[in-house]
Amino acid sequence: MTDDIRLIEVKEGILAQNEQEADQLRASLRAKGVLLLNLMASPGAGKTSLIVQTVQSLAPRLRIGVIEADIDSSVDAETVTRAGVQAVQLRTGGFCHLDAAMVARGVEALDTDNLDLIIVENVGNLVCPAEFDTGAHASAMILSVPEGDDKPLKYPLMFTKCRVLVVNKIDALSIFDFDLDVLRERAGQLNPELTVLPLSCKTGQGMQGWIQWLAEEVRAHQAYKDA
Amino acid sequence: MTDDIRLIEVKEGILAQNEQEADQLRASLRAKGVLLLNLMASPGAGKTSLIVQTVQSLAPRLRIGVIEADIDSSVDAETVTRAGVQAVQLRTGGFCHLDAAMVARGVEALDTDNLDLIIVENVGNLVCPAEFDTGAHASAMILSVPEGDDKPLKYPLMFTKCRVLVVNKIDALSIFDFDLDVLRERAGQLNPELTVLPLSCKTGQGMQGWIQWLAEEVRAHQAYKDA
Repeated sequence: MTDDIRLIEVKEGILAQNEQEADQLRASLRAKGVLLLNLMASPGAGKTSLIVQTVQSLAPRLRIGVIEADIDSSVDAETVTRAGVQAVQLRTGGFCHLDAAMVARGVEALDTDNLDLIIVENVGNLVCPAEFDTGAHASAMILSVPEGDDKPLKYPLMFTKCRVLVVNKIDALSIFDFDLDVLRERAGQLNPELTVLPLSCKTGQGMQGWIQWLAEEVRAHQAYKDA
Repeated sequence: MTDDIRLIEVKEGILAQNEQEADQLRASLRAKGVLLLNLMASPGAGKTSLIVQTVQSLAPRLRIGVIEADIDSSVDAETVTRAGVQAVQLRTGGFCHLDAAMVARGVEALDTDNLDLIIVENVGNLVCPAEFDTGAHASAMILSVPEGDDKPLKYPLMFTKCRVLVVNKIDALSIFDFDLDVLRERAGQLNPELTVLPLSCKTGQGMQGWIQWLAEEVRAHQAYKDA
């Protein structure tokens, strides 16, 4: 009976085209020594806070651009611009993810000849953004303590796509039922290479680990280019 | 300070292209007198059950095609094919929604010269599918009783995009805290034109209302074409 069913693969074509655009973007920024970092998280996990803190720590040493994709708002780009970096707001108007073509439009609006690092704040969502290669050289995700340590079980793809997992709001660990060791184990089963960095954007605890990780990524990226 | 922020509208271009493709698909099926119905719901709400029951009731009178977009599975298309209709499976591999181009590929695989009605089972998700015009002449959604009567508050866009709301699993009303009047009021505030049809695919209660609604849609669509 299954002879009557025609199967059409719609995903492959779309992803193949996106992959091509992502590879082009990655290559063009690599040639310029610019690291493109894709930052993903649920709404409210602290993406903008982390970006603002990162910019304040690194902007003296690195030239940073930020591409914001927060839904129907330009508040985030304003916050970041006040921290003294180039910022572009992609108005996605309710879209659930960014693809490489959208990120490329944001990159085009930045002066990439004078940048070391571009941080893309992806749409607040743990599902759809993980499906699409943005053209970034590395992806990071933020999980905040109030969201729970079970998220690797519910959103496994996101955890496999990231190189680093920032666990934000650790100042609230005492009032939530959140076990960092359990999280590390669950995330590690999905992605043994994942770097886990607990921190609090609010108190500053652990921020140094993130800043060092990111600065080292930029250094390695530029060394690769210069090699 | 906001002078430094460049705003890029990424949504409009994508939606404009999709809208164009949707309009083309709608027009081509209208010219043939084929009604394209987009069926949306959360996973488990009963999309496939409703389609199977619909096909069993209407297939003697109407020539029906079904486009299934269930994630990573061909079980649904097999079920529907057994009910004696043309079926196409779009393998979306985790995509969160269908757009008009994807639906058009499914439509192309059907013998539209010999159909009165095509039902598209959209991806199981109450958010993203509501954003994209599929090219359908009408959209319907299913909300099942166990999901709760608060869904219009959480997913308002979906309720505004549909012409009919099927409330499935009403045989379970007595064991869930679900108030049909409250649901009608909440949905009606978002969309005063919405037709609400409570039913149970399991017991058959209320199915006749849905079948009549759909048969009348097809009749009106074909009368419009012939006029």
